[in-house]
Amino acid sequence: MGITTKRVSTGPRLARLQEIIERRNLDGIVVSSYQNVSYFAGTHLMTQVSLPDRLAFVVVPRGAEPTVIVCGIETRQVKTQTDIADVRDYVEFAENPTEVLAKVLRERNLAGGSIGIDARRLPIASGRVIEDSLSGVELVSVDDDIELSQAVKDANEIAVLESAAKATLAAAEETAAELRAGATERDFSTSAFLKLMQAGGVPLFLVFASGARTMQAHPESTDEPMAPGTLWRIDFGARFDEVINSDLARTGVVGEPSPEQAATLTALRATQDAGFKAIEPGRPARDVFNAVKDEFKRQGLPFSMPHIGHGMGIGLHEFPMLEPGNDIKLEVGMVLNIEPMVVLEQRQEAYHTEDLAEVTANGPRLLTPPQKQLLRIRA
Amino acid sequence: MGITTKRVSTGPRLARLQEIIERRNLDGIVVSSYQNVSYFAGTHLMTQVSLPDRLAFVVVPRGAEPTVIVCGIETRQVKTQTDIADVRDYVEFAENPTEVLAKVLRERNLAGGSIGIDARRLPIASGRVIEDSLSGVELVSVDDDIELSQAVKDANEIAVLESAAKATLAAAEETAAELRAGATERDFSTSAFLKLMQAGGVPLFLVFASGARTMQAHPESTDEPMAPGTLWRIDFGARFDEVINSDLARTGVVGEPSPEQAATLTALRATQDAGFKAIEPGRPARDVFNAVKDEFKRQGLPFSMPHIGHGMGIGLHEFPMLEPGNDIKLEVGMVLNIEPMVVLEQRQEAYHTEDLAEVTANGPRLLTPPQKQLLRIRA
Repeated sequence: MGITTKRVSTGPRLARLQEIIERRNLDGIVVSSYQNVSYFAGTHLMTQVSLPDRLAFVVVPRGAEPTVIVCGIETRQVKTQTDIADVRDYVEFAENPTEVLAKVLRERNLAGGSIGIDARRLPIASGRVIEDSLSGVELVSVDDDIELSQAVKDANEIAVLESAAKATLAAAEETAAELRAGATERDFSTSAFLKLMQAGGVPLFLVFASGARTMQAHPESTDEPMAPGTLWRIDFGARFDEVINSDLARTGVVGEPSPEQAATLTALRATQDAGFKAIEPGRPARDVFNAVKDEFKRQGLPFSMPHIGHGMGIGLHEFPMLEPGNDIKLEVGMVLNIEPMVVLEQRQEAYHTEDLAEVTANGPRLLTPPQKQLLRIRA
Repeated sequence: MGITTKRVSTGPRLARLQEIIERRNLDGIVVSSYQNVSYFAGTHLMTQVSLPDRLAFVVVPRGAEPTVIVCGIETRQVKTQTDIADVRDYVEFAENPTEVLAKVLRERNLAGGSIGIDARRLPIASGRVIEDSLSGVELVSVDDDIELSQAVKDANEIAVLESAAKATLAAAEETAAELRAGATERDFSTSAFLKLMQAGGVPLFLVFASGARTMQAHPESTDEPMAPGTLWRIDFGARFDEVINSDLARTGVVGEPSPEQAATLTALRATQDAGFKAIEPGRPARDVFNAVKDEFKRQGLPFSMPHIGHGMGIGLHEFPMLEPGNDIKLEVGMVLNIEPMVVLEQRQEAYHTEDLAEVTANGPRLLTPPQKQLLRIRA
């Protein structure tokens, strides 16, 4: 990729946690999720996702230096990644990671304090250990503040997001161009992931479905061969530069599309364009949702989406979520996916398209060119 | 693969939850994790991993039928997967998933009850919503009971685990045989994942590292070419049949191994064999750990592992964990990975090997043949 976030400078990120501590009148913050530890410590610990008992924490006392706590198995690697000096570890199974956290909280004078946590991530079992170990501690949910503090990306993050998105689009387009009718769903998935890996990505998720199964949200690919006339859709992504995700969707057809199929894609694309047009600094996120929803109505498409897009970064759905109740104001440097999907019960088909845009002072800058027509697998 | 768990019969699995309810004197159980919902509802919801706010639950009242609660986006798919009749859904963002859970708990007469939960997974924010909505409810951690109830596999699960493990071994061996000196770490990763996909797997995780980076636990592959004499190790896995994982490690070298390198692999393999020999129904899991640890000493290898293996299934580390404090008795039908790893600071190398065994009445049945020597990439 030629871009690297190795040894992320965590200073500016941790400063945002200090702002939250100040604003919410806390004594400190502890983050625990894969997304939050990766972001604030500059680490990439794949076991935070695959082994949920192998907890990791970043402890940030008010106005003081942070401490990272990880499983001893990961220490050597973490020290090559983070620029935070104070890295502690625990012996898995011999020590309870949250008891080690409680010890650090005592040491950092947070034992009786008011501590912000990512309460939508930290498990109840950990909350109980903290409250049992430190009587008088108050655990305050600051999930939204923490998520919002990650929403504006820096130039390097945007560069990675852009090249990741472009590589993902290329993987979909090139695979469609190379396959022929009779190829299976799995042939498509395998080729698309292969191209992503060759571009430097690590497979994250992939939905490829054809026919009526396009109507399911996240089915696995099958060994079903695809006949001419079959509609298909792909929604997939990879991790690039260790922690930055891509997420892109395209709809296509085997052979020539019917006039109805072509018209549906055109209508769906109009709803996506309406969303892009609503991207403007200062407008609330819900405006983008409503713009897409209104255009569904104008285009005569049935609308059933709880959200029509989302921020992108280390998380697959980051703030701001483009949903009807969201009043977060768009800011320059946010990066948003807009992904309208329409389910047509009568035709037993679903269409889905998804592209990434950066919020600039002049409106959206598209990081991937939206699809002009259905992708084609030749008959 | 020719094996399918589609429409898992959840009855026998749910009966085990009823046993836990009985034994722990509960009014019901709610499970929330990807592993637990997949296991007890027979679903595969990839967003339970990638979108942690998109919660899903299985509610099991004492002596009564279960209810599944999922995001409305997933409902269509869930209904093709689960054999549980009562599937409820929530509208993302418009409804708080845990409030919908609380409503179901009231409806199922669990509002004032004692409810078992997977407290190491359910987030604090959800616990607070439940306790605020249902005064008098008691949330009891039953994580260990739930994990243990999944430890003995049925014949179909064992068949999938075996073919998944064999496909993973083949991917590593074939890739090593095909590459030549000068290939990069990423070349190996890409080829190994490609072969797994061609065998029907979905990429889950992959560590491939060479030289001194073998000493890190879970680094990403680089574009570094590998010169003759370089030691490398791979530790990787995929999902097969939607939800069953593989996890296998091998160590190899580029060109001819030095006598020291060959001897280290032989010594490490002796520790793995010692572990396999300790597998016997009725013996506690810690015996396997101690057998491996003792053999490290006999072989003169430095030992620093907090565990030397683990159960396998929908989770990557399932019960029983082969660690020093674990007194879970091995049972026929458990499936265990044994994975000794040795870090040699002086040589700046780490060796790692991992194979899967089924516990039978006659001891272990190896599902993959352990490595006899270092794998080779030809010079």
